[in-house]
Amino acid sequence: MHDDSQSLIAKALRKEPVTRPPVWMMRQAGRYLPEYMELRRQYGFLERCYNPELAAEITLQPLRRFPFDAGIIFSDILLPLDCMGADLHFREGKGPQIDNPVRSAEDVDALTDFEPERDLPSPMEAIRLCRQRTDKPILGFAGAPFTLACYLIEGGGSKTWHHTKHFMWSQPEAFKKLMDKLAVAVGKHLQAQINAGAVAVQLFDTWAGALSREDYLEFALPAVQKVFSMVSGAPTLYFSRDTQCFLDFYPQVGADAFALDWRVDWTRAQQVLGDVPLQGNLDPIALPAPPEIIRQKVHHIIQQAGPTGHIFNLGHGCTPQTPISGVQAAIDAVLEWDWSKVG
Amino acid sequence: MHDDSQSLIAKALRKEPVTRPPVWMMRQAGRYLPEYMELRRQYGFLERCYNPELAAEITLQPLRRFPFDAGIIFSDILLPLDCMGADLHFREGKGPQIDNPVRSAEDVDALTDFEPERDLPSPMEAIRLCRQRTDKPILGFAGAPFTLACYLIEGGGSKTWHHTKHFMWSQPEAFKKLMDKLAVAVGKHLQAQINAGAVAVQLFDTWAGALSREDYLEFALPAVQKVFSMVSGAPTLYFSRDTQCFLDFYPQVGADAFALDWRVDWTRAQQVLGDVPLQGNLDPIALPAPPEIIRQKVHHIIQQAGPTGHIFNLGHGCTPQTPISGVQAAIDAVLEWDWSKVG
Repeated sequence: MHDDSQSLIAKALRKEPVTRPPVWMMRQAGRYLPEYMELRRQYGFLERCYNPELAAEITLQPLRRFPFDAGIIFSDILLPLDCMGADLHFREGKGPQIDNPVRSAEDVDALTDFEPERDLPSPMEAIRLCRQRTDKPILGFAGAPFTLACYLIEGGGSKTWHHTKHFMWSQPEAFKKLMDKLAVAVGKHLQAQINAGAVAVQLFDTWAGALSREDYLEFALPAVQKVFSMVSGAPTLYFSRDTQCFLDFYPQVGADAFALDWRVDWTRAQQVLGDVPLQGNLDPIALPAPPEIIRQKVHHIIQQAGPTGHIFNLGHGCTPQTPISGVQAAIDAVLEWDWSKVG
Repeated sequence: MHDDSQSLIAKALRKEPVTRPPVWMMRQAGRYLPEYMELRRQYGFLERCYNPELAAEITLQPLRRFPFDAGIIFSDILLPLDCMGADLHFREGKGPQIDNPVRSAEDVDALTDFEPERDLPSPMEAIRLCRQRTDKPILGFAGAPFTLACYLIEGGGSKTWHHTKHFMWSQPEAFKKLMDKLAVAVGKHLQAQINAGAVAVQLFDTWAGALSREDYLEFALPAVQKVFSMVSGAPTLYFSRDTQCFLDFYPQVGADAFALDWRVDWTRAQQVLGDVPLQGNLDPIALPAPPEIIRQKVHHIIQQAGPTGHIFNLGHGCTPQTPISGVQAAIDAVLEWDWSKVG
């Protein structure tokens, strides 16, 4: 098996000198790609995730079309919940739905233990297949406990996470037990992906930004710390959105690197977080912009991020409306950068 | 007409000593109140806004039920757009929709000038009616230019503001012309409400947080500055969401006070913003929490905010699910506070 240790992304995660940042994009596999839409017509969403051949193929699709420096395994953050007893559905035209939401201490107790290689072998199998089929490093990922709890308690997506917060404040002990269970599951899941050959793993805390500081500190942070304390052997990244006001908590999180959303101030992030690698942070909605605007924005970000420890990415995932030409323009702008000629 | 200058909210806005902060809540009039739902069954949304008697009655409803220290006039940020040529609808079960979205420079030019007393007299008339019917101070408000542009270009709400950003980046001159037109309209609208007797006016920039720092600076901030430069005679407040990363831009905004969303760190806000009055910032989703949790959270916020220049509020508006008992619990917690007895 090839060695990823000299890959651009591994170097950036060690803060070694590079002439340009490595580049990949959250949701770089998915609905903006015609070749993905072709597979989508033939197979349901869960089938695409649970079949390692399909998951590997979808992971490799963007790597064939674009010169990305890494792939991220095609999967979904909610799959471990499906294995733990949640009745998970992805119905046409709807977001994810869980038909038996967790609303009581009994519901928390009823969730079963999660053993990744036994219960959800497909992402690891897909990582192993990708490693045979490409020299590009492959990232693994999982959802953070609070974000998973949001879907699990709400029974799907929400603008306000009303049920989640109500459960959290009215049954704090049951909520914390749930967070602990989820942290154990997620920690095992990330470790299994590293064991299968992932170059790094990213934890997505998409909805942490719905919490106030005191609630994040009490209810979300301890479980994130537990996840990262369980993981070793490859670098870990923590991504969250709308959490600029929690930046000062990040050093406690235990991740090796942080993925920034597109609003975060680089200067402040570097001041607060110190010498850790940072990933990001182009506004994903900029990809339909004219190529020259994309180029300006990409170069502005690279300049702000500085010459070491930067992984270029979006500040959130590609949308279904993302044009192929915009992805190419952003990658071109990264590839043409050369720190040895700057400054 | 009564004088509001010695009201608690006026004192807080002047940073004068008070024994407790004044309290009002964004969307304190609205769908969580049974008496509002009764009127809603009889009159359409635009009729409730455009009829000054109805708007005044709805403004006064929460002031009869709760000991709020101020009312905020019942209206909608999109009404000036309706007057400027946007084909605005509030259809049952849908958010606001604009059936002729702005998508070109010609569309921008076609928007007509807005003269508040001629085109939209109802909020001012409702303020005058409220001033006759209650001794409580009444706040006026408007939407900030970027937030209005979002609805106008998108034709309604959006998760990504795809069309808005695309217009902004691909037709920057037309976008800036639109922002300037909107700034003039909004500035006049706020001034008219002050002239009608509003104790203060709040500018809602609900969607500014969708922008990156550089885009906020280039496209949104100049128009906000223009709005506040047009307004005098009463204090102005600026509210935005998910903009913690722009806090350092706030001193340039030109507002007299700032309303913070529920994630903002008070310590950092006070450091960055200096000696200005601040409003906020209870998580609105906390109102269904047990009363003792609400009380803890309210007291934690008051303690952090400190003894002068604080107006207690939510960090976003009341939702339709807000329980009456939660609003009462939050107000009770503010009313029992006494800085003269605190440490």
